[in-house]
Amino acid sequence: MDDIEIETVEEVSLSDPVFIEGLPGVGNVGKLAVEHLLEEFEESTLVRRIYADVFPPQVSIDDGVTELTHAAVYAVETPGEGPDLLLLTGDHQAQSNEGHYHLTDAFLDVAESFDVEQVFALGGVPTGELVDEPSVLGAVANASQRDELEDAGVEFREGEPAGGIVGVSGLLLGLGGRRGLDATCLMGETSGYLVDPQSAQVVIEVLQDRLDFSVGFESLEERAEEMKEVAAKIQEMQQQQQGIASDDDLRYIG
Amino acid sequence: MDDIEIETVEEVSLSDPVFIEGLPGVGNVGKLAVEHLLEEFEESTLVRRIYADVFPPQVSIDDGVTELTHAAVYAVETPGEGPDLLLLTGDHQAQSNEGHYHLTDAFLDVAESFDVEQVFALGGVPTGELVDEPSVLGAVANASQRDELEDAGVEFREGEPAGGIVGVSGLLLGLGGRRGLDATCLMGETSGYLVDPQSAQVVIEVLQDRLDFSVGFESLEERAEEMKEVAAKIQEMQQQQQGIASDDDLRYIG
Amino acid sequence: MDDIEIETVEEVSLSDPVFIEGLPGVGNVGKLAVEHLLEEFEESTLVRRIYADVFPPQVSIDDGVTELTHAAVYAVETPGEGPDLLLLTGDHQAQSNEGHYHLTDAFLDVAESFDVEQVFALGGVPTGELVDEPSVLGAVANASQRDELEDAGVEFREGEPAGGIVGVSGLLLGLGGRRGLDATCLMGETSGYLVDPQSAQVVIEVLQDRLDFSVGFESLEERAEEMKEVAAKIQEMQQQQQGIASDDDLRYIG
Amino acid sequence: MDDIEIETVEEVSLSDPVFIEGLPGVGNVGKLAVEHLLEEFEESTLVRRIYADVFPPQVSIDDGVTELTHAAVYAVETPGEGPDLLLLTGDHQAQSNEGHYHLTDAFLDVAESFDVEQVFALGGVPTGELVDEPSVLGAVANASQRDELEDAGVEFREGEPAGGIVGVSGLLLGLGGRRGLDATCLMGETSGYLVDPQSAQVVIEVLQDRLDFSVGFESLEERAEEMKEVAAKIQEMQQQQQGIASDDDLRYIG
Repeated sequence: MDDIEIETVEEVSLSDPVFIEGLPGVGNVGKLAVEHLLEEFEESTLVRRIYADVFPPQVSIDDGVTELTHAAVYAVETPGEGPDLLLLTGDHQAQSNEGHYHLTDAFLDVAESFDVEQVFALGGVPTGELVDEPSVLGAVANASQRDELEDAGVEFREGEPAGGIVGVSGLLLGLGGRRGLDATCLMGETSGYLVDPQSAQVVIEVLQDRLDFSVGFESLEERAEEMKEVAAKIQEMQQQQQGIASDDDLRYIG
Repeated sequence: MDDIEIETVEEVSLSDPVFIEGLPGVGNVGKLAVEHLLEEFEESTLVRRIYADVFPPQVSIDDGVTELTHAAVYAVETPGEGPDLLLLTGDHQAQSNEGHYHLTDAFLDVAESFDVEQVFALGGVPTGELVDEPSVLGAVANASQRDELEDAGVEFREGEPAGGIVGVSGLLLGLGGRRGLDATCLMGETSGYLVDPQSAQVVIEVLQDRLDFSVGFESLEERAEEMKEVAAKIQEMQQQQQGIASDDDLRYIG
Repeated sequence: MDDIEIETVEEVSLSDPVFIEGLPGVGNVGKLAVEHLLEEFEESTLVRRIYADVFPPQVSIDDGVTELTHAAVYAVETPGEGPDLLLLTGDHQAQSNEGHYHLTDAFLDVAESFDVEQVFALGGVPTGELVDEPSVLGAVANASQRDELEDAGVEFREGEPAGGIVGVSGLLLGLGGRRGLDATCLMGETSGYLVDPQSAQVVIEVLQDRLDFSVGFESLEERAEEMKEVAAKIQEMQQQQQGIASDDDLRYIG
Repeated sequence: MDDIEIETVEEVSLSDPVFIEGLPGVGNVGKLAVEHLLEEFEESTLVRRIYADVFPPQVSIDDGVTELTHAAVYAVETPGEGPDLLLLTGDHQAQSNEGHYHLTDAFLDVAESFDVEQVFALGGVPTGELVDEPSVLGAVANASQRDELEDAGVEFREGEPAGGIVGVSGLLLGLGGRRGLDATCLMGETSGYLVDPQSAQVVIEVLQDRLDFSVGFESLEERAEEMKEVAAKIQEMQQQQQGIASDDDLRYIG
């Protein structure tokens, strides 16, 4: 296997596809969002698998059959006028500094092989506490994209996220911007302690507005309710133990 | 020395050989199993040594003479109808993420140079407690292999091992499967605290069934008895010290 | 993106330019000094950006627009007789051992592409306590440079800095010297706990003497005053908490 | 700079030179031994410097002048009948797993460029306590060398050193042996807590016997006396503090 290997699973003809990344991260917001889109768009085609020696050296097992760690790209021919979608997801990010750069380059190579011009990186920005109505924060690789995103409700707050954007989401903008692509990062506010379906939903809502598609949110809303109950129970336990309810004590639950 | 160097020690003509991996891991189950087979099949030929800059930078010493860290492949021309065997063992796994991938590729290159079509990766799955009658859990690179293995008593349990299979055993299935090889992982249940000859035995018993050979188990059974006595003494000591017998306190003994 | 990529932003014709490095380090002395020079020399031209897979895999955000981690080289055509300047700065150093070497080689490649013959690496040497009148310590890649620097007030103290010079500043001398360049390291004494504008000033004063330029220091002096107040308040807090004023308790503040 | 760069400083014509390695390690025994030989053989010629991106990214400073981290090889044309010597020393070993392998390959390339056929790697084996009359333990890359070494007083003890030989000394035997060189490791017993001139002396005494040269030991004996006084004082301090003298409390002093 080459250091990074892009496997062509199927070829599909797409019209002006937009590339959307949802790899694991804060609150797993991006991953949840892309997985939800794959659920809702029932007809999606697995087009590419990306293997790399910078992914964890392991296989996952499903029904006794193993699968080598990889990132997957699915093509969705959306009904309606909006652009088709290329959805990137997986269970892991690169395990090394250089690996992040080279893996992101591979993802952008896949995007460019489909003549993608617009990239969305999805993630979460940790607030440190449970948020009732999470906002979507934004960052762009080039300034011309800001206005339309702000019209869609995306907030651009100076100094946030603190420390910039780390990992594949940041590099999709950094490296994608240098390739002349329109790259945007949408980050749903999230506590950082829990996998956050509600945050995934608000991020998808922005995408729907920008990309002119429409999906249901029932399953995400159900999961959000479950997470709320879990969070409430934990806070109750904390109060019993310490007399002081504290969000900082919530353990990360997925 | 190249980054990874495969040294041809001897050439042997084998008929439909099966490749069996037994490198160090949980309970050293795989390593014990392969070493036992090498003992029992008295006529084995060292055919390949694999050196790598991702092995620990050290030499072992035997009778004052040093040996550079390496993995070794032995050829066994089995009596009877069953396939010949290529047995891979060694004292170390790769020391880096990328190293695991590239070293496993080298092992598969050796296998394919002998026209191997079937690979068995042997290991242990930790249960956290001493097991009287360990089962053999299985995972396969492609589904068609499952039935015959289940007939041989291998259990395929959903969700086990938790977290998949990490290291060379997992990658032999992941990378081997992508090369079109039939790759199977056999994992004997083991506490995870002790080197486990009994677990090695049950794994070999599955191999015997699948590959039509037969070996004795006297030395493994003797070692298993010794380990049982060691385990019993430790539990006794723990009870005296704490009043509570706890398997979690058993130290890893080899 | 290549492992290390030098992007030509603009071409400029300089006369006998001198290369000055100011990347983050002890007390951020070098970085502050170069940033101050860029402020004072209002007409500077960004000529090169250096990207690398050994920089942290992240983007910074300014006004909602992302920028991939990089080091930047600015050209300054100085008024007067003194040499023109090439100023190197950035927010990060390389994140790996080999990365330091290869990144510094890239910086030297940029310098040599402008026919630079003289390199100054700026930094701080930690004293462990607040210093009222910081000296500038020096080190050179070749001995012929010492006398003129001592005339300019630079101190060459045997055994200092203890442990030599680590990171890009040290390698600019080590690798630059091997390329036949005149490389000098100027290190302002600093506590090591606080970003130190005063230390940056004394380093610039040496440069002014050697390179025949002149800048104001008002903004640095203001920042130095602010830092003095901050340090005084911290010491006060410490005294209240412990009864003993101790410089060791000052936290690093930037 | 290439990843590893061998700089030819001077060319020398040697007769049947033997390569002797003395890089930092346990008790700095090897380094002390080689440095002592360089002192005693007043006429030595620096023939090679080896730079590498796996050495620490730093420069040392002597008299204000910097020197990039490197290993150095000196040639000694010995008086008398014995072979000439190539002495390898330096202040650091490689900083990575792969680096150890590739750096040792570079050292062996230098040795082979002088038609060396015999290599000695010098080091210490830690005993955990002060040793009055340290023995020299041995290991060889090929068995034919054992007898002559035993005649010279070298002890080959089964199972020692425990865990084999790690780092450049081990790899000189591992990689050197695979190149067909006669490689021997001589390890002086040492506490492991102190730099040990006495251990360096007994190692040199074996070399003298095998390689037919003769040097004085006055400076090493003086240093050994100093170390004994230091060790005694520390033990006294420990006794005062704890009532129990313990060698385990001796801190590493160089």
